[in-house]
Amino acid sequence: MAGNEMWGGRFERRPISIMEEINTSVDFDKRLASEDIAASRAHAKMLAARGIIAEADAAAIARGLDQIEGEIQEGRFDFRRDLEDIHLNIESRLAAIIGPAAGRLHTARSRNDQVATDFRLWVRAASERAEAALTELQRALLDKAEAHAETIMPGLTHLQPAQPITFGHHCLAYVEMFSRDRSRFADARTRMNESPLGAAALAGTSFPIDRVMTARALGFAAPMRNSLDAVASRDFALEYLAAASIAAVHLSRLSEEIVLWVSPLLGFARLSDAYSTGSSIMPQKRNPDAAELIRAKAARVLGGFVALGSVMKGLALAYAKDLQEDKEPVFAAADALELSLAAMTGMVQDLEISRQALFRAAEIGHPTATDLADWMVRNLGKPFREAHRATGAIVKRAEELGVQLWEMPIPEMQKIEPALTEKVYEVLSLQASLNSRDSFGGTAPKRVREQIAFWRTRLS
Amino acid sequence: MAGNEMWGGRFERRPISIMEEINTSVDFDKRLASEDIAASRAHAKMLAARGIIAEADAAAIARGLDQIEGEIQEGRFDFRRDLEDIHLNIESRLAAIIGPAAGRLHTARSRNDQVATDFRLWVRAASERAEAALTELQRALLDKAEAHAETIMPGLTHLQPAQPITFGHHCLAYVEMFSRDRSRFADARTRMNESPLGAAALAGTSFPIDRVMTARALGFAAPMRNSLDAVASRDFALEYLAAASIAAVHLSRLSEEIVLWVSPLLGFARLSDAYSTGSSIMPQKRNPDAAELIRAKAARVLGGFVALGSVMKGLALAYAKDLQEDKEPVFAAADALELSLAAMTGMVQDLEISRQALFRAAEIGHPTATDLADWMVRNLGKPFREAHRATGAIVKRAEELGVQLWEMPIPEMQKIEPALTEKVYEVLSLQASLNSRDSFGGTAPKRVREQIAFWRTRLS
Amino acid sequence: MAGNEMWGGRFERRPISIMEEINTSVDFDKRLASEDIAASRAHAKMLAARGIIAEADAAAIARGLDQIEGEIQEGRFDFRRDLEDIHLNIESRLAAIIGPAAGRLHTARSRNDQVATDFRLWVRAASERAEAALTELQRALLDKAEAHAETIMPGLTHLQPAQPITFGHHCLAYVEMFSRDRSRFADARTRMNESPLGAAALAGTSFPIDRVMTARALGFAAPMRNSLDAVASRDFALEYLAAASIAAVHLSRLSEEIVLWVSPLLGFARLSDAYSTGSSIMPQKRNPDAAELIRAKAARVLGGFVALGSVMKGLALAYAKDLQEDKEPVFAAADALELSLAAMTGMVQDLEISRQALFRAAEIGHPTATDLADWMVRNLGKPFREAHRATGAIVKRAEELGVQLWEMPIPEMQKIEPALTEKVYEVLSLQASLNSRDSFGGTAPKRVREQIAFWRTRLS
Amino acid sequence: MAGNEMWGGRFERRPISIMEEINTSVDFDKRLASEDIAASRAHAKMLAARGIIAEADAAAIARGLDQIEGEIQEGRFDFRRDLEDIHLNIESRLAAIIGPAAGRLHTARSRNDQVATDFRLWVRAASERAEAALTELQRALLDKAEAHAETIMPGLTHLQPAQPITFGHHCLAYVEMFSRDRSRFADARTRMNESPLGAAALAGTSFPIDRVMTARALGFAAPMRNSLDAVASRDFALEYLAAASIAAVHLSRLSEEIVLWVSPLLGFARLSDAYSTGSSIMPQKRNPDAAELIRAKAARVLGGFVALGSVMKGLALAYAKDLQEDKEPVFAAADALELSLAAMTGMVQDLEISRQALFRAAEIGHPTATDLADWMVRNLGKPFREAHRATGAIVKRAEELGVQLWEMPIPEMQKIEPALTEKVYEVLSLQASLNSRDSFGGTAPKRVREQIAFWRTRLS
Repeated sequence: MAGNEMWGGRFERRPISIMEEINTSVDFDKRLASEDIAASRAHAKMLAARGIIAEADAAAIARGLDQIEGEIQEGRFDFRRDLEDIHLNIESRLAAIIGPAAGRLHTARSRNDQVATDFRLWVRAASERAEAALTELQRALLDKAEAHAETIMPGLTHLQPAQPITFGHHCLAYVEMFSRDRSRFADARTRMNESPLGAAALAGTSFPIDRVMTARALGFAAPMRNSLDAVASRDFALEYLAAASIAAVHLSRLSEEIVLWVSPLLGFARLSDAYSTGSSIMPQKRNPDAAELIRAKAARVLGGFVALGSVMKGLALAYAKDLQEDKEPVFAAADALELSLAAMTGMVQDLEISRQALFRAAEIGHPTATDLADWMVRNLGKPFREAHRATGAIVKRAEELGVQLWEMPIPEMQKIEPALTEKVYEVLSLQASLNSRDSFGGTAPKRVREQIAFWRTRLS
Repeated sequence: MAGNEMWGGRFERRPISIMEEINTSVDFDKRLASEDIAASRAHAKMLAARGIIAEADAAAIARGLDQIEGEIQEGRFDFRRDLEDIHLNIESRLAAIIGPAAGRLHTARSRNDQVATDFRLWVRAASERAEAALTELQRALLDKAEAHAETIMPGLTHLQPAQPITFGHHCLAYVEMFSRDRSRFADARTRMNESPLGAAALAGTSFPIDRVMTARALGFAAPMRNSLDAVASRDFALEYLAAASIAAVHLSRLSEEIVLWVSPLLGFARLSDAYSTGSSIMPQKRNPDAAELIRAKAARVLGGFVALGSVMKGLALAYAKDLQEDKEPVFAAADALELSLAAMTGMVQDLEISRQALFRAAEIGHPTATDLADWMVRNLGKPFREAHRATGAIVKRAEELGVQLWEMPIPEMQKIEPALTEKVYEVLSLQASLNSRDSFGGTAPKRVREQIAFWRTRLS
Repeated sequence: MAGNEMWGGRFERRPISIMEEINTSVDFDKRLASEDIAASRAHAKMLAARGIIAEADAAAIARGLDQIEGEIQEGRFDFRRDLEDIHLNIESRLAAIIGPAAGRLHTARSRNDQVATDFRLWVRAASERAEAALTELQRALLDKAEAHAETIMPGLTHLQPAQPITFGHHCLAYVEMFSRDRSRFADARTRMNESPLGAAALAGTSFPIDRVMTARALGFAAPMRNSLDAVASRDFALEYLAAASIAAVHLSRLSEEIVLWVSPLLGFARLSDAYSTGSSIMPQKRNPDAAELIRAKAARVLGGFVALGSVMKGLALAYAKDLQEDKEPVFAAADALELSLAAMTGMVQDLEISRQALFRAAEIGHPTATDLADWMVRNLGKPFREAHRATGAIVKRAEELGVQLWEMPIPEMQKIEPALTEKVYEVLSLQASLNSRDSFGGTAPKRVREQIAFWRTRLS
Repeated sequence: MAGNEMWGGRFERRPISIMEEINTSVDFDKRLASEDIAASRAHAKMLAARGIIAEADAAAIARGLDQIEGEIQEGRFDFRRDLEDIHLNIESRLAAIIGPAAGRLHTARSRNDQVATDFRLWVRAASERAEAALTELQRALLDKAEAHAETIMPGLTHLQPAQPITFGHHCLAYVEMFSRDRSRFADARTRMNESPLGAAALAGTSFPIDRVMTARALGFAAPMRNSLDAVASRDFALEYLAAASIAAVHLSRLSEEIVLWVSPLLGFARLSDAYSTGSSIMPQKRNPDAAELIRAKAARVLGGFVALGSVMKGLALAYAKDLQEDKEPVFAAADALELSLAAMTGMVQDLEISRQALFRAAEIGHPTATDLADWMVRNLGKPFREAHRATGAIVKRAEELGVQLWEMPIPEMQKIEPALTEKVYEVLSLQASLNSRDSFGGTAPKRVREQIAFWRTRLS
C-alpha cells in the first residue's frame, strides 16, 4: 500500500519523486517506532474497552504490534520510504499481518495526535536519560572534588590568576550547574507529561473514547485539555532543546577548561590513552578530542533550538507540515547531549590532576593581594578603596623586585603603608589565604567539605 | 573619580578612548540601578550587624543610597561613561555625598558578586512581570472564548479547512500555551532565587559575613552554595531567554493568525482604530502593525538566546568580561516580550469577530467529510481505511457537482457506498459535526464551556 | 588496522567505546569519499612528479584509488566506524589492496590539510549545484511570469490589499531575489577556490612539493598563501551556509505565499495531485506539504549557520577537533536547500493560477485609492498630503455606501473634494491603475514584459 | 502633526499608548536621518527636473532639508515619538519650516521605498566602514608579522604543541582571514548597490519619474528592476550581517588567543595599561577586557543574523511591518563590529611579544617529531606510516628519559630504528625544523617574508 493509497480514493496519481523525497520522514522518525507501538497498543485496548472495536480485533492488533516490535528489534523490519513515515510503515505492516482489522486501529485517531503522542513520549524519555546522565556526571565530579578538597590551584578571572582556590571547589561549581540542569529537565518532563492522544486531527472525535485511560496506560499524568493545543504545540520540544542547550553550554565550559588543563603549556592535568587521541603526523600529541567535540557540540544543540524556534515562529494553528521538521533537531540534540555527558563523565573520572603544577601556577600573579588589602581594612581600619590603592602600589613594587608578596621585606611594604606590621605575613601565603575564605560557599577546605557532604546525601 | 582610579594605584595612565568606548556599560546597565542600591543596602546593613563596619558608617551609607535613589528616580543623576558601569557610578556618587565611609561598602564584596546579584534580582522581577502579563492575556483570551464558545469557524490544518471548530475553542488553545509559558517563568524564577552576594570575586571572603541575612533581605530563598558558580554562571539568564523565546513564539503564532483574520481577503475579524495603523499612501488600509511587530519580535528574543548561549559557550571559569555581554540580550528580550504581551492583550480585547464570515468560511472544503467517514465506521461497521476511501470518492463527486456534502443527493452517495442511508445527513451539518466532537478536550460547545470553567477558577 | 594504530606506536591501548562513539565521523564524512580520492590522486601524482615517491608507487596508489572508487560507487565498500573517518577508511583499504606503498601517500600531507581540501571541494560543488538549481527555478518563475504578465492580482502590504499588480510582476520579484542568491553562491565559490593541500598539519612541509600543481589538478585557482589559515579556517563553509540561509529564506517567503494561495479560503491557485498530499482522516484535503516543508527547512539552514558560527567562535588556531563539527550542518543545509529548490521549481511549474479568483480579490479594499490621490495631485495641483486626506474621506464614504471607488457617484465625491470631475474615473479601474504604474520597475504590463525580456536573455 | 494625522482622514481616534509604544521606531531609526535627507534631496530635485513639482517648491524643500540637517547635527532637533519614525519626524519638521510645499515631497514616493532606500544607503556605508577598518587591522597585523617574521613560537593543534612556527606566520593567517572578510563586504556592497527609490508603495507610480536620475544622485549603480522586490527584500541586510558575523568570528578567534597569550600562566605577551583594565578587588590584575568583549560580541552579531533571518522567514510580499525589526540587529552588529575592529587594531599594535617565553614554550612537547618522521621517509626510504610508528616510539622513550628529542642519545634512538644516524640531529632543532618548512605558504622565515611582501604591495 503506497502512501497515496493511504490518503483515500480521491487522488488520481502518485506523487512524483521529488515530492516523495521531500515528504518522506521515515529515515528519521523510525526512531519513534517503539513509542508508536506503545501508543497504538494503548489506543486499541481503550477502543475495545469502550466497545468501539471488537475485542477480537483489539487482540489481533495487539498480536500484530508484538510481532512488528519483534521485527524492528531484530532488524528485520523493512522501512519503506514510499510509505512516508513510521506511522504508515507500521500500519501497512499491521495490515499485511492481521488483515483488514488493522484498519480499525485508526478509529478515533489521526496522524496528528498520533505523532504528537509518540514524540512527547520520546522527548519525555530523553529528558529522563539526561537527568540520569547528569547525575552520573555529578557523582564523578563529586568524587574528584573529594579527592582534591585541599588541592590548591589558581582561581582565575579573565584567565588571570586572582586568588587561590581548591580544585575540589572548582569541581563543585560544576556540580551546582549540572544540578540546575537536572532540575530543568525534570521541570520540562513534568510540564510535558500530558497526553495528546484522542485529540484526533484537531477537534476531538465523536467516538466515545476514554482519554484518561490511554493517558494512564502511557504514563501521562492526564490528557491535554484542548485538542488544538494537543496537535499544534511543540513547546515541550523547544523546552527540551533549551534545557539541553544550557546543559551543553555548561559541558562546553568544562571542556574548554580540560583542553587548557591538559595542554602541555600548562600541564595541570593528564588524560589517559583511553581519553586521548593521536595525530596522523605528530606521534607525540595527546589530543583531548573528546573535550573539543563536547565543546563544539554545544553549538549544534543551540542551533537546534534556533531551528525549531524559527520553524514554530508565526505558524498558524492547528497542524502544519512544518511540524515534521521538529524531530531532527531534537534527535540530533539528544544524541549530542547524551554522548557528551557520557564522554564527560568518563573524562572526569579519567583526569589525573598534577597537584604540583597547580600549586606552582597558584603562586603566579600575586594571588594573595586581596588578602593584603582585606588585612589592612580589618586591622588598620582603612576604607576598602584606600587599602586597595596601597595594595596596588605594593604589588607593583613586588613586581619590580621580582618577588612574591610573601617574600616582600616589611620595610619595602612600609614605604607604601607605614602601619603594616609583620603580622601581615599571616595572610600572605596561599594556604592561609585559602583557609581564610571560609564564608558560606567559599573555597576554604572546610567549606568545600561541607559542600561535598551536602551533595553526598543528595546523590547517593 | 575616573574608572581607572577605582582599579587602584598601579595603573599609570588612563585607558585610551577606544577602550573606554568598548568597556563602558553604564548606558545599558543603569537599568540595574535600583537592584544595585537594594543589594548595597542589604550588604551594608549586614556588615554593620556583623560588626565589620561601624553602625554610623552603615547609616551614612543607607542615607547616601536613599539620596542617590531619589536622584535617579527624579532624573537628576548624572550617569558618567568614564565611570564605566552602574556600580562605579553609584559608588562614586556615594563617596561624593558621604565621604570616605563610602569606601567601606565594598568590604567583603566584589563587582563580580555584585553584578551577579543585581542581574539576578532584575531577571527575577522580569520573570514576575512576564507571569503577570501572561495572566492578563489569558484572561482576555478567556473572555473572548466565553463570548465565542459557540461561534463556528473553520478548523484549519495546512491552512486548509479540516473540520468545524468554535472560535472559543481556538482561543483556549492559546490559554493552554500561555499557561505553560507562565509555569516556565515560575520554574525559572524559583530556580534562580538564590543569592550570589558574598561570593566576592570568586572564592568567598575572610570577613565574617552573614550570607543568609543578605539573601533574606533581598528575598532570596538561600545563598548560593558555591562561590565560583555564583559569579560565573548565567544559566538563570539563559533560562529566562528560553522561556521568553518560547512565549514569544506562541505570541507570534497568534499574531500570524490575527494578520490573516483581519485581512480583507478573509474578513474574519476587525481591529478598531486603536489597534490599526494607516499607510502614508493608501488611506483605506487598516494595517495590523502591532500583530506584525509581535510576530517579528519573537525573532529578536530568539536571537537573544543564541547570542547569550554563544557568549557562554566554552567560557572558562570564573568571571570573564564576556559576561558583560549578558545584559543587553536580556533587556532587549524583556522589552520585546513585555511590549508584545501588553499589545497582544489589548488586541485580543479589541478584536471584533465576524460570526458570519467565519461561518461562511467554515462551509468551505467539505469539512464534515470526517464525520461521514466516522459514520460509516460506526454504522456500517467498516474499517476506518475503507470508510476513508469511500468518503474520498463522495467528496470528489460533490466537487464535480459543485455542492456541499450535506447537499449531496443520497443516490449519488449510494453509487459509491450503497449501504448509506438518509440517517447520514444527521452528521453532515456543521453544527452536528461540532456537537459530536465531545471527547475530552474536543470542540463541542459543552466541552469548550468545560474548559472555560476550568480556567475561570484558576485565573480569577 | 584500527584507528589507534594509525596514531603511531605510543598508544598502549585502544580508546574505549564512548571515545570511539564520539570521535567517529565516517557515518557522515563518507560523503567526502570522491573528493578524498580526487585529492589523493592529485597528491600522489605530484609526489611522483617531484620525485618524492617512486612512479611505481604512484601508479599503484592510483590503481588502488580507482578500485576503491569503484567499490564505493557500487556500494561494496565496507565503511568501518573503528577507522574513525573517511580518510583512514580509504587509506586502510588502500593498504589492503596495494600493500606498504599505500603508506607513501601520506608523505607531505596531514589529515588537517586533507580534510580542509576535501571539504572545500565538496562545498564548491554544492555551491555550483545551488547556482544551477536556482537558475532552473528562475526559469520556471519566468515562464509563469510570462503566462501571467497581465493577470491582475491584489498587491498586498500587511496582507491588506494595497494596489493591483500582475501575477507576472509578483513572480519577477522572486526572479530578482534568486538572482542575487545565485551571485552570492558564485562569489562564495570564487572566494573559496584556493587549495589548502600542502599546508600539512599546520606549518607546511620540508618535502619539495608543488602546491600549484595539485591546486590546478583539483580546479583551484591557486594554493592558499598561509598554511595555518589553510587548515584552521572554515569561513568558506560559513559563507556557504549564509548564502544558503538567505536563499532558503527567499524560498520560505514564496512557500508562505503558495500556502496562502492554495488555501480554499482564498482559492488563488491550485496544486495538482503531484504536488499535494492528503490527510489520513480528511479525504478532501489537498495539503501543500512541500511548500510547508520548504518554509520550515529555512529554519534548519539558519540553525546550521548558527551552529557552525558558534563552533568557530573563540576557537584558537590552528586545528582543533571542534572543526569536525563543521560538516553535518553544511551537509544538512545542502540537502535541505537542494531538495527545496527542486521541489519549489516543480511546484512553480505545477501551480495553476485562478485568474478569476485573483481578479475578484484585487477588487477588495479600494485598491485604486492611491490612484485617486495621485490624480488630485496631478490634476488639481494639491499637495500630496492633502490629496491623501481627501481620498481617505472618500474611501470612508464608499465603505459606508458599500460600493467600489469606481462605482462612487461623482456628487458623493464632490461633497468631499468639489474640484473632482468625471475624468477621475479614468484612473479608478483596476486595469487603468495597473497600466498607469509604468515607472521603471513598475507593475504596468509593458514594464513587466520589459523585465521578462531582460531575464530571457540572461537565463537562456 | 501627530502620526495618525499622517495616515489620512479616515481614522477617528489616536492609537492608544501601547500601540504608540510598540509602533514607534524613531528611537533607533533616527540613525537614518542623514540618509533620509539625502534621499529626499535627490527625490525633490528629480521631481522638479521632471516637472512633477515646481522648481520653487523643490528649492524650498532643499532649503528646509538643509536647515533640518543642521538642526540634527547640532543636536537641536526634537525627535518626537508620537511622530513614529524618522521619516515622519523630518517631514513634519519640513512642513513647519516651509509650509504646504513640504507635502509635495511625498509625491511618487511611499514610506516603503523611502525606508528601503535609506537603509540600503546606511548598510552600504557600514560595509565601506568595515572594509576600511579591516584594512587598518590587516596593516597592524602585517607590521607585527614583519617584526616577528623569525620569532619562534609553538604551533598548536588541539592546544597541544605540534610544530614550531613563527609569530609572524601566525599573524599572517589572520591577515588572510580579514582579507576574505573585506572581500565579502565588498561583494555585498556591490550587490546591494541598486536603488529602490521610485518603487513607491510596492507597484511603481504613475508619475513620470526618472529613477536613473535619483539612483545616480545617491551613488547607486542603477535602479532596482522590480518594485515589489525593491520594498520587500532585505537580503542586503542579511548579507551584511552574515559578513559581519564571519568577520566577528575571526576577531573572536584572535581574541581568544590574546586572552591566552597575556595570561601570566603562559606569559607569551603583554598588553600595556592602555589596553588592560584592573579589578576592583585584585589590584595586580591586568585583565584583557577588550579581547574578552570582542570575543563575546561575535555572539551578538551572530544573534543578529538569526534574528533578522527569522524575521524574514516565511514573510509574504510585499511590505509588512515585521520589516521594521530589520534595523536594530544591523545597527547593533555594526556598532559591535566597528568597535571590535578598532579595539583589535589598537590591541595588535599594543601587544608586546615575549620572544623568550614563546621560545621556551616552543620547546615543549617534542615539536620536531614530525621532522624526525619525515627524515626517515626521505633518508631511509620508509613508508610514512612506518616512520610515524618509529617516531612515536622514540618520543615515548624521550619522555621516559625526560629529554628533548634533540638531546636523545643516538644509541637510544637506534634501539628503535637501527638505521638512524647522527645526521638526524640536523632536523631536530627548532630552527632547523622551522627553516625546513619552506613549501609555499609554509612557516619558514623566507616564506613568511614572501607573504609579507605580497601583502605590503596590496595594503599600502
